[in-house]
Amino acid sequence: MKIAVDAMGGDYAPKVVIEGAVAASKEYGCRIALVGIRERIEEELQKIGGCPEAIEIVHASEIIQMNEPAALSIRKKRDSSIIRALELIKQQKADAFFSAGNTGAGVCAATLGLGMLSEVERPGIAIIMPTVKKTPTLIIDAGANIDAKPTHLLQYAAMAQAYYRHIFNCDNPSVGLLNIGEEEAKGTDFVKETYRLLESSHLNFQGNVEGKDVFKGKTEIVICDGFVGNVTLKVSEGVAEAFGVLLKRELTSSLMAKIGSLFVYPALRRFKKNFDYSEYGGAPLLGVNGIVIIGHGRSSAKAIKNAIRVAIKEVENNVNQKMLESVRKLTYNV
Amino acid sequence: MKIAVDAMGGDYAPKVVIEGAVAASKEYGCRIALVGIRERIEEELQKIGGCPEAIEIVHASEIIQMNEPAALSIRKKRDSSIIRALELIKQQKADAFFSAGNTGAGVCAATLGLGMLSEVERPGIAIIMPTVKKTPTLIIDAGANIDAKPTHLLQYAAMAQAYYRHIFNCDNPSVGLLNIGEEEAKGTDFVKETYRLLESSHLNFQGNVEGKDVFKGKTEIVICDGFVGNVTLKVSEGVAEAFGVLLKRELTSSLMAKIGSLFVYPALRRFKKNFDYSEYGGAPLLGVNGIVIIGHGRSSAKAIKNAIRVAIKEVENNVNQKMLESVRKLTYNV
Repeated sequence: MKIAVDAMGGDYAPKVVIEGAVAASKEYGCRIALVGIRERIEEELQKIGGCPEAIEIVHASEIIQMNEPAALSIRKKRDSSIIRALELIKQQKADAFFSAGNTGAGVCAATLGLGMLSEVERPGIAIIMPTVKKTPTLIIDAGANIDAKPTHLLQYAAMAQAYYRHIFNCDNPSVGLLNIGEEEAKGTDFVKETYRLLESSHLNFQGNVEGKDVFKGKTEIVICDGFVGNVTLKVSEGVAEAFGVLLKRELTSSLMAKIGSLFVYPALRRFKKNFDYSEYGGAPLLGVNGIVIIGHGRSSAKAIKNAIRVAIKEVENNVNQKMLESVRKLTYNV
Repeated sequence: MKIAVDAMGGDYAPKVVIEGAVAASKEYGCRIALVGIRERIEEELQKIGGCPEAIEIVHASEIIQMNEPAALSIRKKRDSSIIRALELIKQQKADAFFSAGNTGAGVCAATLGLGMLSEVERPGIAIIMPTVKKTPTLIIDAGANIDAKPTHLLQYAAMAQAYYRHIFNCDNPSVGLLNIGEEEAKGTDFVKETYRLLESSHLNFQGNVEGKDVFKGKTEIVICDGFVGNVTLKVSEGVAEAFGVLLKRELTSSLMAKIGSLFVYPALRRFKKNFDYSEYGGAPLLGVNGIVIIGHGRSSAKAIKNAIRVAIKEVENNVNQKMLESVRKLTYNV
């Protein structure tokens, strides 16, 4: 088992990426190909005690920056860490790819470089959201495909169901369609058409769900188009951040609150952990012909380690094959 | 000044609606027409010491339930409290309308019953979101119009700017377009076309904003289509609710946390107040030819009182005229 890691991608790259990758190789016994500028990677490895045997360096001279236009950057920077790392998958020299770099470039390069699973029309980013239950909600698509058709969403549901089943060990995960009301007649024509497709599928479709249901864990899987999914992700992050700022502000506003904070500190730390995306590590890109995980730009070493853990689980469970089988059962005429 | 209140609308109607309305009439010195089933209103008024002089009852025999289909219900229930209350506005017997009932029915009935401000094509629901700053963010549209065109969004921006200026006493509120990235080239064709229209307008347009920026208060106004706005609203509610559940769970999980909670209780109460929608009371429906405020189904008496306060401010500041002037300055060819 070998994971190709874009060592240059992410706000704190290459340092934390390398730390996370080394930690993963030790903890999970996997091999890692660190792809990027050799000297910089070697320099970072020196700082943490040299290059472990399970780690190899694959040189790539260019870096795609976080805010570069996706399509243009992958066309121009053929020797970038993202492109070179994906080539390892294509050449079957590695089993899975992780990058915390430019999401658009990662999605674009993976789609063009690896191609799609047969019959799958578009890739989708699946994000894992915490809920008040013990199990998370998987939302797809979070922004890989902003000009989606209803059939794309149907395929997302089929892939997500297979993914959730095998990664979260859940027998028959349920599927909800993100809408602005629970009634079948709600929403745009696009959403209504998607509803009809989902309803006549083999998937465990539970009808429409609303934004607030995501965090209640009403269904294990929530389907939406990439624009709406991306807004959902960022609004959630925004509310959580604002909550953090305001909670801290109030808890430091008086002596009594400060004293109390000492007592509630462990509870607040556990509370915070509920919303810590680094527990899940990254967002799998479903539909491409290979295992691809996209990390948050701000990924910590722990997030990267956990993303690699999920990548390993995807490979071991052969999820791409399972997703393909689920997609093959679909019918598109209703 | 008289406010027509749908006494039968809302999860806790008529009780809390009447309590809120009576409190508003006392505090703000306005007259209130409570519209609904006379006996039930009289009964509730008896419980709180009889009918004050500033309150009149306007009988309406029917109730549109919270989950009835909007268009059908307003066509069938001509003697419902929503329809009768809006007639008071139309006949100039009242200056503003408030309902915490069926949102779709309220929007539909107001649009058909009052008509639109001249030149305005579609109504939009404006919601007031808390931020980490002192000033809130106004998001429009939160679901009145789910088949929006870019020109509708441009008009929302023009109306929202005039509204925000006069209701929140802000000289030149800035406008952001909700998108999945900050760069101009991001998003769907719909969003890009809206960007171009906003950019060439007289409005203080600051470009794209992302979901997380809403709560940072990056711009005073955030524009989006009704589907995305509704998802944004409900995702925010969902995260806030989940936060509350999980925070409470952790703070009651150990003796130490329970002791600490006593100390931090006032801070937590202040914290919670930041997210209390009842401070703003309701969501104005902009674009219709009359002052209309839609309350949350779960509106408390306080929320209803505050919604009436905002309605009074809208009337006093003649915001509909100001919005109309702002819309008239728009050009639609870019």
